[in-house]
Amino acid sequence: MADLTIAVDANGADLGPAEVAAGAALAAAQGVRVLLFGPAAEIGEVPEGVTVVDAPVSIAKAADPARAARSTPDASIVLAAKAVAAGEADALVSGGSTGAALAAGLFNIKRGRGIHRPALAIPVPIPGHPVTLLDVGANAEARPEHLVQFAFMGAVLATAVLGVERPRVGLLSNGTEATRGTQTVLDAHAQLTERMAGATALEFVGNIEGTDITNGSVDVVVTDGFTGNVSLKLMEGVSKVLLGAVRDAAMSSGRAKAGGLLLKPALGGLRDELDPEAHGGAYLLGLRRLGVVPHGRFSRRGFSQAILLAARGARGDLVGSTHAALEAAGALKRSPAGETPARPEAPAAPTGEASSVSSS
Amino acid sequence: MADLTIAVDANGADLGPAEVAAGAALAAAQGVRVLLFGPAAEIGEVPEGVTVVDAPVSIAKAADPARAARSTPDASIVLAAKAVAAGEADALVSGGSTGAALAAGLFNIKRGRGIHRPALAIPVPIPGHPVTLLDVGANAEARPEHLVQFAFMGAVLATAVLGVERPRVGLLSNGTEATRGTQTVLDAHAQLTERMAGATALEFVGNIEGTDITNGSVDVVVTDGFTGNVSLKLMEGVSKVLLGAVRDAAMSSGRAKAGGLLLKPALGGLRDELDPEAHGGAYLLGLRRLGVVPHGRFSRRGFSQAILLAARGARGDLVGSTHAALEAAGALKRSPAGETPARPEAPAAPTGEASSVSSS
Repeated sequence: MADLTIAVDANGADLGPAEVAAGAALAAAQGVRVLLFGPAAEIGEVPEGVTVVDAPVSIAKAADPARAARSTPDASIVLAAKAVAAGEADALVSGGSTGAALAAGLFNIKRGRGIHRPALAIPVPIPGHPVTLLDVGANAEARPEHLVQFAFMGAVLATAVLGVERPRVGLLSNGTEATRGTQTVLDAHAQLTERMAGATALEFVGNIEGTDITNGSVDVVVTDGFTGNVSLKLMEGVSKVLLGAVRDAAMSSGRAKAGGLLLKPALGGLRDELDPEAHGGAYLLGLRRLGVVPHGRFSRRGFSQAILLAARGARGDLVGSTHAALEAAGALKRSPAGETPARPEAPAAPTGEASSVSSS
Repeated sequence: MADLTIAVDANGADLGPAEVAAGAALAAAQGVRVLLFGPAAEIGEVPEGVTVVDAPVSIAKAADPARAARSTPDASIVLAAKAVAAGEADALVSGGSTGAALAAGLFNIKRGRGIHRPALAIPVPIPGHPVTLLDVGANAEARPEHLVQFAFMGAVLATAVLGVERPRVGLLSNGTEATRGTQTVLDAHAQLTERMAGATALEFVGNIEGTDITNGSVDVVVTDGFTGNVSLKLMEGVSKVLLGAVRDAAMSSGRAKAGGLLLKPALGGLRDELDPEAHGGAYLLGLRRLGVVPHGRFSRRGFSQAILLAARGARGDLVGSTHAALEAAGALKRSPAGETPARPEAPAAPTGEASSVSSS
C-alpha cells in the first residue's frame, strides 16, 4: 500500500491527538503514507511515513457540526477533507464528530456523481461470518432510491474489501415476506428486485428480519440510518451485557471460577474477534473519495486499523467500482431534464448526523 | 388468580393444539381458568380448570390474516376473541399468527376508548434488569401521538406487571440528543416532554440509543413496530450467536473443554434467564381487554407462562390503569368535533402485522 496516502484528522479522539498520531505511526509502519492534520504541538515527534500538518482548530465538539464545517475553513477535519479533494490524499479518516466528517466531506470532497446520499457502512464482526451493515447513521431517514444505492454500495464493499464473491444482499424489515415493512421498505423491495434481476455480481435475497443479521444468511444488510444505527449499537450492547453475564457466571462459585480460568484463553479469542478496534470502524461511502470513521474512543490500534481500512478501500477502488455497479444497474441519479450536467451538485442535506448540512 | 379466565387459541402453535392444551393444564394447576378454543378431537382429555370449546377452523396460516379474521367467524382465534369481548374471559392468548390475533382483537374486542393504535409490548429478559420494549410489531409505522401512547402503555405495564415503581421511559433514536432522530421521533420527543412533565408515576429520560436498551438506564423503550421488531429479533440473534460462540470456544481445546464442563451449571442459569419461553411472550395492548402473544414455537411451558402473563396483566388491571394514565396526561385521542361519542370506533388499519385490517 506504499503508493497510498491517507489524510487523517487527529482532533476529536477521546485519547487525544498524540494517540491518533501513534496510530498513524503503526499504519505507516505497514507502508501507508499518512497526512496528519492536528495540533503539531501536541503531536510532537512523528516517524517516517507520517507528515504532520499543523491544524490546531477542532470542530469535533461543535453543537452544529454542519455549520461549523462551513464556517471554520481552518478546522483540521476541513483541511483534511480539502487535501483529499485536491488529490493530495486518497481517503479521509476522522475519529471526531461523524457529523463534522460527513459535512466536511460533502462540502469539500463532494458527493459522487449520481449518488443521492452518502452512507456509513460497517463490516460487523459476527463470529464466523462478518456482515456489512449500512446505513449506520449518515441519514436518519431514507427514500427507496437511497436504499437501492446503499445495497449496491454495500455489495461492492463486501466484494472489494471482504472478498465475498457474490454477496447476498438483504433488505432489513419486520418480517421476511415482501409484503412486510414500511411503505419505504416495500418500494425499495420492488426497486431492488428490478435493479438486481440478472445481476451476476450480487444476489438480492429480499426482506430479512433482525435474526438474519447474525445468522449468516446474508453478507450485506441494507437499512436506513436510524434503524442501522440502533441495530449497530444494540449489537454492541447485547454483546457487552452477555459477555459480562458469562463473566459473572464464571465468578458465581468455586467450581465456576475454576472453569472460567480454564476457558479464559479460548474466550479471549472471541473477545478479540468482537473487538471493534480490530476492525477500524465504518466506511463513509458516496463521496468522490473514500472516508473511514473510527470510533472516537479507539486507541492507537483502532486508529491504525482505520487507516489501513481506508487504504484497503482506496486500493480496491471502492468508489469507482460502486459507480460502475450503480451505472450498470441503472441506479444512478439522473440529472433533472434541462439541467446542465456539468453544474456542480449541491451537497445533500442528510438528516440526523448532520441535520443542517446544506449547500455552501 | 382463581377468579380469572383466559381465552386461549389452541391453533397455530408449531407443536400443535395438544401442546397448547398441555400448557393450559399447567396454568390451570396454578389456579387460572382456561377457555381453550381448538380442535377437540386433537386435544383429547383435559384437566380441571380447562374448558375446551370445539373450534377446529384455523386461520393461523392465512396469507391475509385480517381478511381471514373478518370472513371466518368460526375460526378459533375469532371465537376466542368474541368470548373475551363478551366478558366470558378476561384476556386473550394466541400463539398463531400475530396478524390474525391483532385483527380478531380489533374486530371483536375493539380498540380501547381514546387509543390510536394497539401495540405489542414485550418484557425483554436482559440479565439483571428486564426492560419493556414496545411496539415490537403491531404497526410498522407510527405517528408521534402513537409513540406517546405507547410510552404510557409501557410504563403502566412496567409498574403493574414488573413492579417497577417509577419507570424510566426512553425514546429510541440514533443518538441521545433531543435533536437526533426522524421527524416522527423529534415530534414524539417534544410531545412526551410536555405530556410527562410533572408526572410522578414515571419519568421521561429523553432519547436513548441502541446500547441503552441493554445497559439498565431505562425500564421502558418506546419505538415504532418496525424498529422494535428488528431490535427484538436482533437481540435474539446476537444472544444465539454469542452463546454459540462461547460453546464453540469451550470445545476448542482439552483445557477449554474442562473449563466448559465446570462452568456449565452457572451458564445454564444464564441460558434459562434468557429463554423466551420463561417469559411468556408479548402483551397486546390497546384493546378493551388484554391479549398475550406467545411465540408459535413455544412448548407447553411457554404457553403456560403466556397464560399466567395474561392473568397477571388482567389482575393488575393493565387496561384500566393505562386508560387512567393516558387520561391524566391528556394523551387520549379526542373524538373529532361533531362526532357522536357513542358511535362505535372503526378499528385502525395497522400496517405490517395486519396490513389490511379495516373496519368490518
